[in-house]
Amino acid sequence: MSSGEQPYTRISHHDSDHIFVRGHDLVNDLIGKVTFTEMMYLDITGRRPTRAQTVLLDAVLVTLMEHGITPSVLATRVIYDSATEAIQAAVAAGLLGVGSRFIGTMEGASALIEEMLAAPEGVAARARAIAERHRAGRRAVPGFGHPLHRPDDPRTPRLFALAAAEGVKGDHVAALRALSTEVDAVYGRHLTINATGAVAALLGEIAMPREIMRGIAVVSRSAGLVAHIREEQLVPSARRLWDMGLAAIPYREDGEEPA
Amino acid sequence: MSSGEQPYTRISHHDSDHIFVRGHDLVNDLIGKVTFTEMMYLDITGRRPTRAQTVLLDAVLVTLMEHGITPSVLATRVIYDSATEAIQAAVAAGLLGVGSRFIGTMEGASALIEEMLAAPEGVAARARAIAERHRAGRRAVPGFGHPLHRPDDPRTPRLFALAAAEGVKGDHVAALRALSTEVDAVYGRHLTINATGAVAALLGEIAMPREIMRGIAVVSRSAGLVAHIREEQLVPSARRLWDMGLAAIPYREDGEEPA
Amino acid sequence: MSSGEQPYTRISHHDSDHIFVRGHDLVNDLIGKVTFTEMMYLDITGRRPTRAQTVLLDAVLVTLMEHGITPSVLATRVIYDSATEAIQAAVAAGLLGVGSRFIGTMEGASALIEEMLAAPEGVAARARAIAERHRAGRRAVPGFGHPLHRPDDPRTPRLFALAAAEGVKGDHVAALRALSTEVDAVYGRHLTINATGAVAALLGEIAMPREIMRGIAVVSRSAGLVAHIREEQLVPSARRLWDMGLAAIPYREDGEEPA
Amino acid sequence: MSSGEQPYTRISHHDSDHIFVRGHDLVNDLIGKVTFTEMMYLDITGRRPTRAQTVLLDAVLVTLMEHGITPSVLATRVIYDSATEAIQAAVAAGLLGVGSRFIGTMEGASALIEEMLAAPEGVAARARAIAERHRAGRRAVPGFGHPLHRPDDPRTPRLFALAAAEGVKGDHVAALRALSTEVDAVYGRHLTINATGAVAALLGEIAMPREIMRGIAVVSRSAGLVAHIREEQLVPSARRLWDMGLAAIPYREDGEEPA
Repeated sequence: MSSGEQPYTRISHHDSDHIFVRGHDLVNDLIGKVTFTEMMYLDITGRRPTRAQTVLLDAVLVTLMEHGITPSVLATRVIYDSATEAIQAAVAAGLLGVGSRFIGTMEGASALIEEMLAAPEGVAARARAIAERHRAGRRAVPGFGHPLHRPDDPRTPRLFALAAAEGVKGDHVAALRALSTEVDAVYGRHLTINATGAVAALLGEIAMPREIMRGIAVVSRSAGLVAHIREEQLVPSARRLWDMGLAAIPYREDGEEPA
Repeated sequence: MSSGEQPYTRISHHDSDHIFVRGHDLVNDLIGKVTFTEMMYLDITGRRPTRAQTVLLDAVLVTLMEHGITPSVLATRVIYDSATEAIQAAVAAGLLGVGSRFIGTMEGASALIEEMLAAPEGVAARARAIAERHRAGRRAVPGFGHPLHRPDDPRTPRLFALAAAEGVKGDHVAALRALSTEVDAVYGRHLTINATGAVAALLGEIAMPREIMRGIAVVSRSAGLVAHIREEQLVPSARRLWDMGLAAIPYREDGEEPA
Repeated sequence: MSSGEQPYTRISHHDSDHIFVRGHDLVNDLIGKVTFTEMMYLDITGRRPTRAQTVLLDAVLVTLMEHGITPSVLATRVIYDSATEAIQAAVAAGLLGVGSRFIGTMEGASALIEEMLAAPEGVAARARAIAERHRAGRRAVPGFGHPLHRPDDPRTPRLFALAAAEGVKGDHVAALRALSTEVDAVYGRHLTINATGAVAALLGEIAMPREIMRGIAVVSRSAGLVAHIREEQLVPSARRLWDMGLAAIPYREDGEEPA
Repeated sequence: MSSGEQPYTRISHHDSDHIFVRGHDLVNDLIGKVTFTEMMYLDITGRRPTRAQTVLLDAVLVTLMEHGITPSVLATRVIYDSATEAIQAAVAAGLLGVGSRFIGTMEGASALIEEMLAAPEGVAARARAIAERHRAGRRAVPGFGHPLHRPDDPRTPRLFALAAAEGVKGDHVAALRALSTEVDAVYGRHLTINATGAVAALLGEIAMPREIMRGIAVVSRSAGLVAHIREEQLVPSARRLWDMGLAAIPYREDGEEPA
């Protein structure tokens, strides 16, 4: 669409007695009849989800919500303490950490899956090429490896089993499995498919476009950050985090500037 | 808790093979077995929700997710266009608008409900006093009135009907209804209970503390903002919004500075 | 201004060969001829600052820029590490902490100064009443006391000396000094005027409206946060902060929920 | 630095009577003696700036501060209206738009300048190669062209003249000029060096590392956003912007989903 054309929205409209979302009457057809997850799928894609799509999106959202004390949680907790009148700002501060380092791997894994599925030479051959390409470039394969969950990330088989049980097409999961086989062969050791890799495959199975996948993680994580704000209200940690921050980064006049 | 005491978290811990959230095994007990909404309730409160609590929390989240082109959506769309590499920043920009003006009324309504429920003279008498107090002070009663949905906000009876159908205690809803009666009598005209008022009552029914209610709105709205980012990817509006912004706020050298 | 009236801007306009800010030609009259601080004063107030106004605004901006490892800095550093592609998001995360707890005291001090200056009974009498009112309510007097800088905050006399040397009217500083005398008398011990109190007085002296004072702190702090991002690029601390966060908030299954 | 090593800060430390920034006593050596711009340079780089460095950094900060009604300003104004209690959140919302689309070109221009300065074949030859490379790839050359300021951006010659007058080394400016000559030759028409290109050269002249250049823009822009918040307090536009947003993005049930 060129910038000269007239934009429009197909998401929502209303009159004094009705609110419509994606053509559905909010009051009569959605409230009390669909879950948050079904509503979210409808709002983002414009389509009512199938049962399988809802189950898998719920599984992804449940998987990504909570990770204990993470960098995002640290940001949310200290900002909440500095501005308790603005919970939205504390959540926003933490969400700003849902960036390339941790969630970008999900998008990278999705790009590899799409590359395999579109390859004229077939999934397996392209999987081999991808593994060799990353190894030659000494680059991590997005979606593989985990610093803590070794040898295997326990979330991955659970997510794959759910996809199988729900009877989705399965090509995204199969491609990622094929890549896993080649990664192990090319690297000469086992690298687990991690949760973000598995999530990328599941979101592909439910036709969630790669360009918006990070947004799914943002929504899930926002709920986790709210949980930590609630705990911060009951058991404050921000002052302790400040003290620990001072101890973690001591002043050193003679610190050398790296070249 | 004084700042000298040791903080702690009861939310999550893990080892190499397990992740626990609120004492439940994520892989075996939560993924594929609970919805996003059940997981969110568990994460925030530490308790598994009853069926009624899940239904009402879903209803609240569905009600608040999408409102078409709002100030938050405008912020999200223009920021997305300026930094397409950072979806999280575009969502955060919009969430920063979930502040006192629109969502603060939910907290205000909740405070009034709590005041009525705790009043020694009873709900009805305190309702009368609250209505008179606001009228005397020429202040809007939080949770009442709507610029568009007149005479009645269609979402409110639907949310109240759901609460009744699910068999919750009903004291928060009853208090808000009592206040409505007195507001109409004191103001001499009908003011609808609006959606944020009804939401405040429902969140009270499911034991969601007032201090964290704004967080529920933040989570729901984050999904709506992701939907608008997705539409912005397909049908860009940001350039048009810029042009309209320039037209909406023309330069006036002779503009008078208000006193 | 009612919402129905036409808004306008008096800040900036341009044509293909010129950019004007507050009526001044950016290229010919401002770039290379005014400092950042003069430009900022002009942009915010619409007036070119006097020399004294520039000196005092510089002094305020220099005072507030850097505080070492603060909660805002912790947020900025961990968010930068999570999304190195988006420096603007890391700065924004830290700025979200420039809220009520630390900077709100500046606005509170300014409100007290304005109250004294407008009091029909005179500054000294109102200062006494303010001190007694806060003591009776067991509330901290905004702008007074400091956990570290005892007995006196070293920044305060320096800022006051600058104001005297520059020959400003001095009524805001005098009012805050009067309040200090009464605070010490009423509380029966010496409480220092802290830096945020002194800053509130200086911003009053240069006719910076109270409603926008927090914005001055935001600008100054943004530069400090950029300095910490630069250090984080050279000497990364975010991983250590994560570890320290985990240690600071240990998991306790038996942690008691506070009442 | 590996993640296992001990991080440290060389930025600031304090005791009860002193605050030190980059080894200088804040109260005795900085407040009242350095400008915001000098303090910012010191805080970020660890070095006191020369007079020329201060003049050029001021020129850059003055150039970037204000652009009238931009996407960032739209975000700041609507968010301020939604949460007037949190000015810091309104500034943060706007700053989140200082991303790749507008400011990224500064970093891209800086990368090209560095490439030319490091080229064994010399600046001119590499300039030719860069121009040809971008033309062949049908990519815009970062730092060149402007939709409004044609044929020339008036800010660029002013910034270059300042650099010459201050007697800096001039190699960054010279390289960008060399690139300009080749761009015009290769593209067969005149493309102006725009302000972000010129700013990239000036920041290079004052030894500001490319990795942190975006931060300089963030600081400057934060002051401009505060100016717009101040105007919004006096002449509210947010309601009008909402109306215009609704008009700019009309609902279309039959809107076609782009392929």
